[in-house]
Amino acid sequence: MDSLKEERKTTGWAAKDPSGLLSPYTFTLRKTGEEDVLIKVICCGVCHTDIHLIRNDHGTSNYPMVPGHEVVGEVMEVGSDVSKFKVGDTVGVGLLVGCCNTCRPCAAEEEQYCNKKIWTYNDIYTDGKPTQGGFSASMVVHQKFVVKIPKGLAPEQAAPLLCAGVTVYSPLSHFGLKKSGLRGGILGLGGVGHMGVLIAKAMDHHVTVISSSNKKRDEAMNVLGADEYLVSSDADKIQAAVDSLDYIIDTLPIPHPVDDYVSMLKLDGKLILLGVVNVPLQFVSPLLMSGRKTITGTFIGNMREIEELLEFCNEKGVKSKIEVVKMDYINTAIERLANNDVRYRFVVDVAASKLED
Amino acid sequence: MDSLKEERKTTGWAAKDPSGLLSPYTFTLRKTGEEDVLIKVICCGVCHTDIHLIRNDHGTSNYPMVPGHEVVGEVMEVGSDVSKFKVGDTVGVGLLVGCCNTCRPCAAEEEQYCNKKIWTYNDIYTDGKPTQGGFSASMVVHQKFVVKIPKGLAPEQAAPLLCAGVTVYSPLSHFGLKKSGLRGGILGLGGVGHMGVLIAKAMDHHVTVISSSNKKRDEAMNVLGADEYLVSSDADKIQAAVDSLDYIIDTLPIPHPVDDYVSMLKLDGKLILLGVVNVPLQFVSPLLMSGRKTITGTFIGNMREIEELLEFCNEKGVKSKIEVVKMDYINTAIERLANNDVRYRFVVDVAASKLED
Repeated sequence: MDSLKEERKTTGWAAKDPSGLLSPYTFTLRKTGEEDVLIKVICCGVCHTDIHLIRNDHGTSNYPMVPGHEVVGEVMEVGSDVSKFKVGDTVGVGLLVGCCNTCRPCAAEEEQYCNKKIWTYNDIYTDGKPTQGGFSASMVVHQKFVVKIPKGLAPEQAAPLLCAGVTVYSPLSHFGLKKSGLRGGILGLGGVGHMGVLIAKAMDHHVTVISSSNKKRDEAMNVLGADEYLVSSDADKIQAAVDSLDYIIDTLPIPHPVDDYVSMLKLDGKLILLGVVNVPLQFVSPLLMSGRKTITGTFIGNMREIEELLEFCNEKGVKSKIEVVKMDYINTAIERLANNDVRYRFVVDVAASKLED
Repeated sequence: MDSLKEERKTTGWAAKDPSGLLSPYTFTLRKTGEEDVLIKVICCGVCHTDIHLIRNDHGTSNYPMVPGHEVVGEVMEVGSDVSKFKVGDTVGVGLLVGCCNTCRPCAAEEEQYCNKKIWTYNDIYTDGKPTQGGFSASMVVHQKFVVKIPKGLAPEQAAPLLCAGVTVYSPLSHFGLKKSGLRGGILGLGGVGHMGVLIAKAMDHHVTVISSSNKKRDEAMNVLGADEYLVSSDADKIQAAVDSLDYIIDTLPIPHPVDDYVSMLKLDGKLILLGVVNVPLQFVSPLLMSGRKTITGTFIGNMREIEELLEFCNEKGVKSKIEVVKMDYINTAIERLANNDVRYRFVVDVAASKLED
């Protein structure tokens, strides 16, 4: 394969309109540049964000669009300036494939906060062509946005760490909340929340899951290993939990009052928002002032944090709850994910799927 | 004076009802306990909080009440276990005179966040008697809540540092915002805000004052030394300042939208709320998430921070803008302060005042 000089065709499954349905789509990959890695996709996680983009919920979608940003694959070819990877390595790609490399966040290696970041799909790459994601036989990605998957970590286990996992890990790491013995809350038990429970437990934290109903109590306590379970409408239990938590990871993507959760934090406690809520959230200032508490929000994590998390999960044996499917199931999977009918993450076994018509 | 064995009479000016008027009041001081310091008051600052308590705005006031919590005085006597102070020292007392000494904040020497803290006045001391503040000839205070005033710092300059000053200094110190070259915003130019400009400038920060009108522009720029002045309703200027500040100190004690201010913060920037606003403040989560920004609030500072600030201001020659008055002017001063008619802090020269009828 002399593809350093040639563009290639590859096949993925693409949304071609806002109907929500994916179908086979053959497109061109750029040739492998000096700093690029050609990756044969093994598997790819399905994230809630994929649904919004497939269906054009934000009005920003361009078609045809090959989704997928929790990509694990095998290196098939590397550019002449790639030293970090070699052919045969198992590697991962997350939500981003480019950044400006010059702004303040880029200089601080916090490229996820670069205003000119390039998304793994539904974006335009530096060559002017659309980026396409991991629901595809192969991808070409700049080495800066590729991570090595540690030996011993199964590809389908690694995939959800690349977005959902690092979304939880990054704030815990950045805000000094990795040390054992902390008491954490996880608000909302979806794809990100379930990862939060697993990662926080692997850090030896005491974990309280906070949910709107009792429906997930058994699952949270007995399957995921949470220590406590609180129903958010139970005022007595909320009151009893005042001043008890070092942090709360709030994954709710819908409007909700936050004062109760702030009150559950200890001195210097942090409410970490991970859900995009464009309706205003409300709080009263004395709740923060009385304990130097913080409301903050973060967005995925940087490449170093992804690498750290992969090592951490491999070492601790963190196993996320996934349902592995083939590509011909993707439209059903998307429908089920939209209805919160998955525990907790679909991963598409791309390598074992028939991608062509 | 054999007062270690005796209670003593002293005279202060007290509010006797919610009318807002203070008048002479003679009361008993406890004898100087083993860890106590007897202080002859030299001067005492007047804080906006004093007005709320004098007038029973929060329904928590007890009368007669001698206000004053920015107290500078001379040590007249020390208890047998007091080693840090000696007779003749110039010392200061701030907003607190007691704490539980056992809770998590107390163990961390963050006694200002102790739920059982004892306020300098309008509270009950461990002996069951009311605490009375610095508008008084003398006070008895536990050594833990007394700080030494550095030589060279005038008593009337030290007074406003004990509450207004440390209220600004504490978050800058705690959140790692003391280093030179940072860009800060000061929202609201009252007693605390003016101190914010002076302290931030002494830290070699680039300081932008944000105010609701142009009224204070000349004062902010030419008297206090701010670098920029922004009117909060000027959408173009606010837009031009997006992503430019490391922190904003928000001293507004009234409801106000915070999204504009959050947007003005850089990656990892902090909006630090110092004003008690019991009406909910609002924000949308993506504004925080897009730059790992923080909304937080703090309350005065700990004793170590007060000592650090006094040294810092003495060394840097920070001079706050004060108006020194005698006690017989206090009722007028309170009226003027309530109307924001002071630049920027009244300090009562207690030692030079006639306190008795």
